[in-house]
Amino acid sequence: MSIRVGVIGGGQLARMMIPAAVDLGVDIRVLAEQEGMSAKLAAVEVGDYRDAATVLAFAKTVDVITFDHEHVPQAVLHALVDAGVHVHPGPDALAVAQDKLLMRERLTELGLPVPDWARVSDAAELQVFLDAHGGRGVVKTPRGGYDGKGVRVVSGADEVADWFTALSEDANGGSLLVEELVSFRRELAQLVARRPSGEVVPWPVVETVQRDGVCSEVIAPAPHSAGRLADVAGEIASTIATELGVTGVLAVELFETTDDRLLINELAMRPHNSGHWTQNGSVTSQFEQHLRAVLDLPLGWTGSHQDWTVMVNVLGGPVGESLDDRFGAVMAEHPSAKVHTYGKEPRPGRKVGHVNVASDDLDDAVYTARAAAALLGAENA
Amino acid sequence: MSIRVGVIGGGQLARMMIPAAVDLGVDIRVLAEQEGMSAKLAAVEVGDYRDAATVLAFAKTVDVITFDHEHVPQAVLHALVDAGVHVHPGPDALAVAQDKLLMRERLTELGLPVPDWARVSDAAELQVFLDAHGGRGVVKTPRGGYDGKGVRVVSGADEVADWFTALSEDANGGSLLVEELVSFRRELAQLVARRPSGEVVPWPVVETVQRDGVCSEVIAPAPHSAGRLADVAGEIASTIATELGVTGVLAVELFETTDDRLLINELAMRPHNSGHWTQNGSVTSQFEQHLRAVLDLPLGWTGSHQDWTVMVNVLGGPVGESLDDRFGAVMAEHPSAKVHTYGKEPRPGRKVGHVNVASDDLDDAVYTARAAAALLGAENA
Repeated sequence: MSIRVGVIGGGQLARMMIPAAVDLGVDIRVLAEQEGMSAKLAAVEVGDYRDAATVLAFAKTVDVITFDHEHVPQAVLHALVDAGVHVHPGPDALAVAQDKLLMRERLTELGLPVPDWARVSDAAELQVFLDAHGGRGVVKTPRGGYDGKGVRVVSGADEVADWFTALSEDANGGSLLVEELVSFRRELAQLVARRPSGEVVPWPVVETVQRDGVCSEVIAPAPHSAGRLADVAGEIASTIATELGVTGVLAVELFETTDDRLLINELAMRPHNSGHWTQNGSVTSQFEQHLRAVLDLPLGWTGSHQDWTVMVNVLGGPVGESLDDRFGAVMAEHPSAKVHTYGKEPRPGRKVGHVNVASDDLDDAVYTARAAAALLGAENA
Repeated sequence: MSIRVGVIGGGQLARMMIPAAVDLGVDIRVLAEQEGMSAKLAAVEVGDYRDAATVLAFAKTVDVITFDHEHVPQAVLHALVDAGVHVHPGPDALAVAQDKLLMRERLTELGLPVPDWARVSDAAELQVFLDAHGGRGVVKTPRGGYDGKGVRVVSGADEVADWFTALSEDANGGSLLVEELVSFRRELAQLVARRPSGEVVPWPVVETVQRDGVCSEVIAPAPHSAGRLADVAGEIASTIATELGVTGVLAVELFETTDDRLLINELAMRPHNSGHWTQNGSVTSQFEQHLRAVLDLPLGWTGSHQDWTVMVNVLGGPVGESLDDRFGAVMAEHPSAKVHTYGKEPRPGRKVGHVNVASDDLDDAVYTARAAAALLGAENA
């Protein structure tokens, strides 16, 4: 019988683990939130990931549990571990990804470079921080934010009055995170994979381009990153993976500041949009490496096929029309473009696919990937 | 709704179409011969591919039908076409792959280079051919042979007496194919893909190494093939694809003779073992290209990631032991090796997986691929 990996969550990250599992000969089984999701091909069950009994029953059918997202409650994660289930990443690591305040605290304890930050419980505390940082700051809800949600750039404490009100009404109470507005040259992401026995393998640091808080483009490796920049980014991610005990893929989003520092922005403990380029650009994709890591198998080489790989997200896409209808035009015009779609209904702003292009010529890769994505999704044009 | 591709047959070729389908966003559905086959993840139905009603009902659930093997009877194929189903490759092309005598006739009519051959109905006719070709020849049953089965090298007509007896007892009657014993330097394979609207795209010609009639190793591209050899091989395969109206992947097995000619050995109208290297060595794998071709989508680039890619089959493997148990050792020792297993129970002589290694150094690729395959499968050692 083959090794069985169980994935909680049926989104596109679970979907993209399927090819890697099929190639390796690993059985992949997905617990999906609902019918017809991206990973439906491997969805053996539909159920609520917040319900311990549901998740425990699912876990009994597999050898290891991993995740499409970081939203499984700590109580459920601990119930799995208590029942002897192999859970990767584990509850303690995931707790840091689930709570941005805890994340800032742990990174600060580890002496790693982060923006100035504070825990604030009311408007007065927030205003003190803002006054000390040029009158502006970035306020984040500690939980539940992604793709720019739960994040506001503010010039005064009153701009998050609704969040403080919500907190005061929440039985759990709680605080907000405020950070300095970092003056950055560009954003980077450093991915590594770590397996339980300790091995850590990085990919090259990449440049990520955000649009409206959503990743729109990735260039691998980040231009002008060879040498110190790559070394420091790799060292930061490797330290986080080891010190927090992360297993599987860890993505560290970084700011490259205008004064040449690297500061840690966000963490993700799963395959990440900034690593999609590895599907067509790296000897080992992030999805294959994630499976190897959570199975505690030795990790694969992460050399690149070509000098450059560019990934462009397809956002939105043709509403009321299938993406498939545009395949012909994209493929005819861009035979080197690798199109990935997620089987999701196009909707404004929704990530419905991406395009990877590998080339020894960066301009060619950027041009082709953007042109192909633009043909697929209206919002990229 | 996504485009739906139906694959008849649940073997490893159908299995390896799954990753390509998932990446593209194509729904893949497999009609498997039985439960638990290699392609079980996409097997929506188990049924007999020789039964027209079964196959027709399956075809109604998809947009196009293609194949894991070439054994679907002509009557079933024609029933599909008559019912308006898109079938790729079509019955007329497949007929040529299903019958080696018909294949030799058609290639000869097209003026393409083949070994000397004859249709023989009894021992006397066979002996005449053998006497005219140095007393030896290769006798083949026109149908049902693969991986060396249905093929005998003989020095006298009596060595296939059992086959003539079987033919005489067969209500359909029939003949055997005899071919000259070609004096060859090495064996090559030329793969191309062709889509219904006519576009044909080749991969580089590769060298194939057989052991006991079974493909054991592929080197891509074939060493010393640049220039005339590659051109001639590509032209031969392209002519066959176009003239026979093949759709999807066509594999042409070739002899490179000791007097510097290329002669056509066998044809396969589907993804082929000699193209497995493309999964990790080519911008477009044979499985992705096959799906694009049968969907009549523009074909992808077939440039190579590295100078060389070597594929070694894993034959047999550890009986009574899971291949998975050996993953750790293989991955630890050979981080650049890409392991593919088919979810099949190891059995002596059975193809249960393969290993691909891409490198700019041929010796390194050959060494690593052989060593990794040897660790996985006892018979490779």
